[in-house]
Amino acid sequence: MAISANNIADKFISIQQSICTSLEKLDGEAKFESDLWDRPGGGGGDTRIIRGGKLFEKGGVNFSAVHGETTPELCKMLNTNAKEFYATGVSIVLHPNNPFVPIIHMNIRYFELPGTETYWFGGGIDLTPAYVFSEDAKHFHGELKSLCERHAVADYNHFKNTADNYFFIPHRNETRGIGGVFFDHLNTEKTAYSKQEIADFVFDTGETFIKTYLPIAEKRRSEAFTEDNVKWQHIRRGRYVEFNLVHDRGTLFGLKTNGRIESILMSLPQHATWEYKHEPEENSPEAEAIKYFVKGIDWV
Amino acid sequence: MAISANNIADKFISIQQSICTSLEKLDGEAKFESDLWDRPGGGGGDTRIIRGGKLFEKGGVNFSAVHGETTPELCKMLNTNAKEFYATGVSIVLHPNNPFVPIIHMNIRYFELPGTETYWFGGGIDLTPAYVFSEDAKHFHGELKSLCERHAVADYNHFKNTADNYFFIPHRNETRGIGGVFFDHLNTEKTAYSKQEIADFVFDTGETFIKTYLPIAEKRRSEAFTEDNVKWQHIRRGRYVEFNLVHDRGTLFGLKTNGRIESILMSLPQHATWEYKHEPEENSPEAEAIKYFVKGIDWV
Repeated sequence: MAISANNIADKFISIQQSICTSLEKLDGEAKFESDLWDRPGGGGGDTRIIRGGKLFEKGGVNFSAVHGETTPELCKMLNTNAKEFYATGVSIVLHPNNPFVPIIHMNIRYFELPGTETYWFGGGIDLTPAYVFSEDAKHFHGELKSLCERHAVADYNHFKNTADNYFFIPHRNETRGIGGVFFDHLNTEKTAYSKQEIADFVFDTGETFIKTYLPIAEKRRSEAFTEDNVKWQHIRRGRYVEFNLVHDRGTLFGLKTNGRIESILMSLPQHATWEYKHEPEENSPEAEAIKYFVKGIDWV
Repeated sequence: MAISANNIADKFISIQQSICTSLEKLDGEAKFESDLWDRPGGGGGDTRIIRGGKLFEKGGVNFSAVHGETTPELCKMLNTNAKEFYATGVSIVLHPNNPFVPIIHMNIRYFELPGTETYWFGGGIDLTPAYVFSEDAKHFHGELKSLCERHAVADYNHFKNTADNYFFIPHRNETRGIGGVFFDHLNTEKTAYSKQEIADFVFDTGETFIKTYLPIAEKRRSEAFTEDNVKWQHIRRGRYVEFNLVHDRGTLFGLKTNGRIESILMSLPQHATWEYKHEPEENSPEAEAIKYFVKGIDWV
């Protein structure tokens, strides 16, 4: 029998737990607070927040599994008459204190229309450094490439290009960071792989998350930094806010469908800055960083 | 002869100048920097920025007059085949240092399809305090009511309701601040007043701006404040960012039509904060303030 929605949600919960354990160990001080919540229309979630840590200023590792009646809008979007939907996922955003430690984001998700054959998986991991170290980028993309190579259904080059295009801020003409992988609407019909094979790839994405980030965080967390570094970090976080509030499909979908606001907007940083016409000085580390916020760099 | 687009733009420029002069005097330290810019497709603007002042941390008083070819999208929106458009306006957002001095926003704008009869005016003024003083709110709304009473075309109650509905953040279920007036698509066809009469109201809106704000800023600028007050100010600024990036029609239109980003996003504050599930303590001044972020309060 094919893997069920409940099996998937259970696995997502165990991935959430394992990531929280690793991140607490990595932080070395802060513990996750857990907020269990119910969705009035059906289902709920476990929002886990870390803040004021040694490594992490603010972050969340959220699980949710929601279900209920489809809306006319959703039916139109999906070209279906199904009465019910089901969606589960894990979403992570981590904002570290040190400007040399990058922001990281991960999401894995599963959607189905119960009683029909329609389902799909989606997800991705992407990195948003304020300063770009090519060895870190190489490690990060290298882990993602290995991840994809472990699964026939996954195509690193394709998923990396999708991430470059997705995590792009058109009004700034720059990428949010150095990308990663992004995939959506993976199912048997579209990929010719079994549901189990796709699920295995998505679970492995969740399980690979810590490996992509840990060595980078460990290496950069003790770098000395100046006020100027923090200012640049806060400006880049402003761009993160711009992306999430103007472009991110998940955020906008959540805001427009009466999702749990605090879980959706946990992605926003503790502090962000906007400065009129900020331009890094020529040949500064900040000017150097910006050169990497473009699509199509082959990091591996 | 009816007042022309050039007449209107000239008047807008003089309103911009006069407001900048008054605001510099009010600040007492910072001066506006002026950035003249050209729009590749036609027209341009004068973005004036004030920052690091005694009163104002960051703000802008922007003029623009742009014209050029209509796009298929615009034609569809306006149900027209016109080849050309023209738009001019003044936009202001001021973010003060002191948490007891409110953020203020003003916009006046004129749009026409040259060679057709189609034109309209729009605009508004609204106030976003972090802490609400009812005497300040009464002064602010009182000035706006008087403004509307001076012009047959203006209806304070209607324009105030429009502002309550427009400056509303659905995902927070709260208004951005204490509202003001907001109006759009004012023309002879819709109002049965002459173009000159409508223009006179819009100009008066621009000329009334300083009167609505100055006494409030003067009264509150020297209030002593704590770190907690600043934190609350930054949280409210976070909501301002949410409104502007998720809902504000002008901002989204600018971002999606390749407008001059730095002029559009000058509305964002220098510093903003997001905290997971921030809730003011019971009976605190912050809890008191939130009670006023609802629609339909009669301030006058």
